[in-house]
Amino acid sequence: MSIIVKQMHGFFSPNSVAVVGASKKINKAGHVIFKNFADNRRRGVFKGELYPVNLHEDYILGFKCYPSLSKIPGGVELAVVVIPAAAVPKVMEEAAAKGVRSVVIISAGFSEIGKPEIENAVVSIAKKADIRVLGPNCLGVYDISTGVDMLFLPETKVLTTGDVFIATPRPMAGHIAMITQSGAFGVAALDYLTGRQMGISRFVSFGNKCDVDESEMLEYFLHDQETWIILLYAEAIEAGRKFMRVAERVTEKKPIVAFKTGRTKAGARAAASHTGAIAGSDKIYDAAFAQVGVIRVQDMEEFFDVGKAFAFQPPAAGDNIGILTDAGGPSVMAVDECESKGLTVKEFSEETLREFENLRLKGVFPKFATSLNPVDITGSATSEMFELSAKIMLDAPEINALIVLGLHHTPALQEDFVDRIASLAKHYTKPIVACDIGETEMALFIRSRFEKLGIPAYSSPEDASRAIAALVYYGEYLEKKGCFDDYVERWVRRRDIKL
Amino acid sequence: MSIIVKQMHGFFSPNSVAVVGASKKINKAGHVIFKNFADNRRRGVFKGELYPVNLHEDYILGFKCYPSLSKIPGGVELAVVVIPAAAVPKVMEEAAAKGVRSVVIISAGFSEIGKPEIENAVVSIAKKADIRVLGPNCLGVYDISTGVDMLFLPETKVLTTGDVFIATPRPMAGHIAMITQSGAFGVAALDYLTGRQMGISRFVSFGNKCDVDESEMLEYFLHDQETWIILLYAEAIEAGRKFMRVAERVTEKKPIVAFKTGRTKAGARAAASHTGAIAGSDKIYDAAFAQVGVIRVQDMEEFFDVGKAFAFQPPAAGDNIGILTDAGGPSVMAVDECESKGLTVKEFSEETLREFENLRLKGVFPKFATSLNPVDITGSATSEMFELSAKIMLDAPEINALIVLGLHHTPALQEDFVDRIASLAKHYTKPIVACDIGETEMALFIRSRFEKLGIPAYSSPEDASRAIAALVYYGEYLEKKGCFDDYVERWVRRRDIKL
Repeated sequence: MSIIVKQMHGFFSPNSVAVVGASKKINKAGHVIFKNFADNRRRGVFKGELYPVNLHEDYILGFKCYPSLSKIPGGVELAVVVIPAAAVPKVMEEAAAKGVRSVVIISAGFSEIGKPEIENAVVSIAKKADIRVLGPNCLGVYDISTGVDMLFLPETKVLTTGDVFIATPRPMAGHIAMITQSGAFGVAALDYLTGRQMGISRFVSFGNKCDVDESEMLEYFLHDQETWIILLYAEAIEAGRKFMRVAERVTEKKPIVAFKTGRTKAGARAAASHTGAIAGSDKIYDAAFAQVGVIRVQDMEEFFDVGKAFAFQPPAAGDNIGILTDAGGPSVMAVDECESKGLTVKEFSEETLREFENLRLKGVFPKFATSLNPVDITGSATSEMFELSAKIMLDAPEINALIVLGLHHTPALQEDFVDRIASLAKHYTKPIVACDIGETEMALFIRSRFEKLGIPAYSSPEDASRAIAALVYYGEYLEKKGCFDDYVERWVRRRDIKL
Repeated sequence: MSIIVKQMHGFFSPNSVAVVGASKKINKAGHVIFKNFADNRRRGVFKGELYPVNLHEDYILGFKCYPSLSKIPGGVELAVVVIPAAAVPKVMEEAAAKGVRSVVIISAGFSEIGKPEIENAVVSIAKKADIRVLGPNCLGVYDISTGVDMLFLPETKVLTTGDVFIATPRPMAGHIAMITQSGAFGVAALDYLTGRQMGISRFVSFGNKCDVDESEMLEYFLHDQETWIILLYAEAIEAGRKFMRVAERVTEKKPIVAFKTGRTKAGARAAASHTGAIAGSDKIYDAAFAQVGVIRVQDMEEFFDVGKAFAFQPPAAGDNIGILTDAGGPSVMAVDECESKGLTVKEFSEETLREFENLRLKGVFPKFATSLNPVDITGSATSEMFELSAKIMLDAPEINALIVLGLHHTPALQEDFVDRIASLAKHYTKPIVACDIGETEMALFIRSRFEKLGIPAYSSPEDASRAIAALVYYGEYLEKKGCFDDYVERWVRRRDIKL
């Protein structure tokens, strides 16, 4: 384990944690955070020692309380600090004396409000004592496997009617690591990922990033077995060269999907007044990301859509896309979007066309179906036609990836077309994504069935096309770096374990 | 009523309908369509006479069956034709003899499979007899108020497990008219609109459009009281000048949102093999749409998002957008998207800044809040802060439209901020759209609450920004044409009736 990995490990897997500013008051962040740890400890998820630090309490939630870090009998690896900014430097001195390795400062009121002095004091103490600091002004860490949970936003909310609603849910376990500069967007993302059934490995928000930054987190996630994909939300990346050095090593093994905002002039101004971020020229980010194989997305939806694509599917070995549909209009939308993204949707080779012709002669392919590309098996579509057509396209050497636009509305189509395509997919390493349009029962069922069987499904043809475009870009990058085969081999191994 | 309006009226409000090819067989389109009419007649929704036409049956669903159109005792205004293509010209001859005014040909197998002869025969008979024809190869008409329902796709589907699921739902009543060339996209759209609780007035799909085209439908919807917004999906508009003439008159009164696909070269090729459409140069469409005030969207989601914006909100009187948020990151996303769409997010006037400063001095605006634009009331946000800030922004003459990014996750924010903003909105004619991010309980509740109170709500900052951009473009066009005040006056009248 490199020194950075070891240091970052302290934030995610500490053997002992002190919550400085732990509280009994239900609405205080110091209460919510301490309760998260206490609950997870009782459940046996968080296995470390846990100490509340508060001058005025003897016990909090059954845990003996200490007036300061120095009074805690055992060692403290990680301190979570939830007290007013002005008192933080003193806590840092105590942490240094106590031998604390990692400090997360949740509290706000530092450089983001134009007061860099306290933050500078914190950094200077940390440097001397070799303490790594996350924050200040951040949400900290949420780690599903170790039970480290610093999210202080209420998991449920009580409406004025008295009804209780889930407000800030925790997603299920999975393999996406999320790094976010914005805390507000971070929790919103957790809410989104939960609702869309996308699993995460770990989550980290670092706010002002006075010490630990995205590059060190990337380094950590590179070595983290549970993390296969990294989603990065950033308003500015100040240490550009450091970022590129790390990112280049990471992307050989794991995709980094970056949502860098402040891309317009007014956006950059807004970012500056938000986290004090100096966004810099947007084109420089474009070039830098492309150089080290970071996939950049343009909006929030694409961010998650692309993340989902990587969670399920391998990269593509080329840019020619096959489109299979029972709905002409939506296939035109998919072609438009693929082409806009620089992909191609070429007509088939003569051999592939002959295969389709054979199906037609056998009577299993509808007479009026189009077998160019997109393949449109029309409103007469059956599960069998979807399966047979998908097979021809996956076998066709000229096709690198497949978009299945299986609109469920056609009368003869049974929902088992999903299962048939998923079974077929197991024999190939070409990426497949699906789309069904609609927001009522059957559409929701079809999309969720696809995803249960490992094929990411989208609610519009354009979303599906953007997802496949990311798989193409990343494939091209891996090829260039000579890492494509290794990546796909690892992906196949993981898939086969799940099967 | 102009002659065209009168003719089109025959498709939506016929006094008597014959279904040629009505059937007892459950899976036949001729059965589903006849049953739709029969059910709606029993419910008292469809008030016209109804006649099944079938050589081999005496009765269908309790209705006396006739061997041909000519044998029907009463008059027939509209014939819906669901028999094989080859037999259609003969039916047209009978329709001509019978004095039928309108024919919808649902059947496929005409020019779209390279057989123009039958279609030409149909057109020539229709021309001579002054019959208007919709189709062939189409879904026809769905009219929620008159009970005309030609959708032959199964409303429910039985899974292989035996469970019954809604598959092709009918949306609720509302004021969006939908015109679509693609039938498959048409039903998918109905599914989407149903799930998103967007109401429609009427729906029409015209497939090969051998006679009636989008321009005539636009003319009809211009005069249709129930229709306030028109969504148009097209792969090609052949009669360009005619379209522009009509569209120009329509857009003075009602927004037309156009989703024109085949915008790339490969997309155009796909469209050609789908409906035989010659897509033409995409830039020409851009220019033509802009000239006559048609709002063009780039993808499916934007199509519906913009439709929803017009269903709820007035156009904007300028392009400077106010953004109000409790979440810094998402507000940067909104600014980026606004600026990319050519809008501005300018800093406030000194007067507006002073208003915010007053709030801060009174202690109702958080100390660390940003009052530039976006206004970020931070994680300390309360309902009151949202209301007070929104009021300042709606009062500010430099702000033409408002995006409220109210992320529900912040601890102190109660859900009644939605009601407060909606109450406030009633006193202004500036458009407001909202966004909350998340896919679990609270986010779904917040978005649906906004929409119940007349403010369209989106699940990403970019979607909200695209929606507001359309309200700005349309406002600019109306101003140029001198129709802005009339439009807003009509909009206010409708809003006040609802209140």
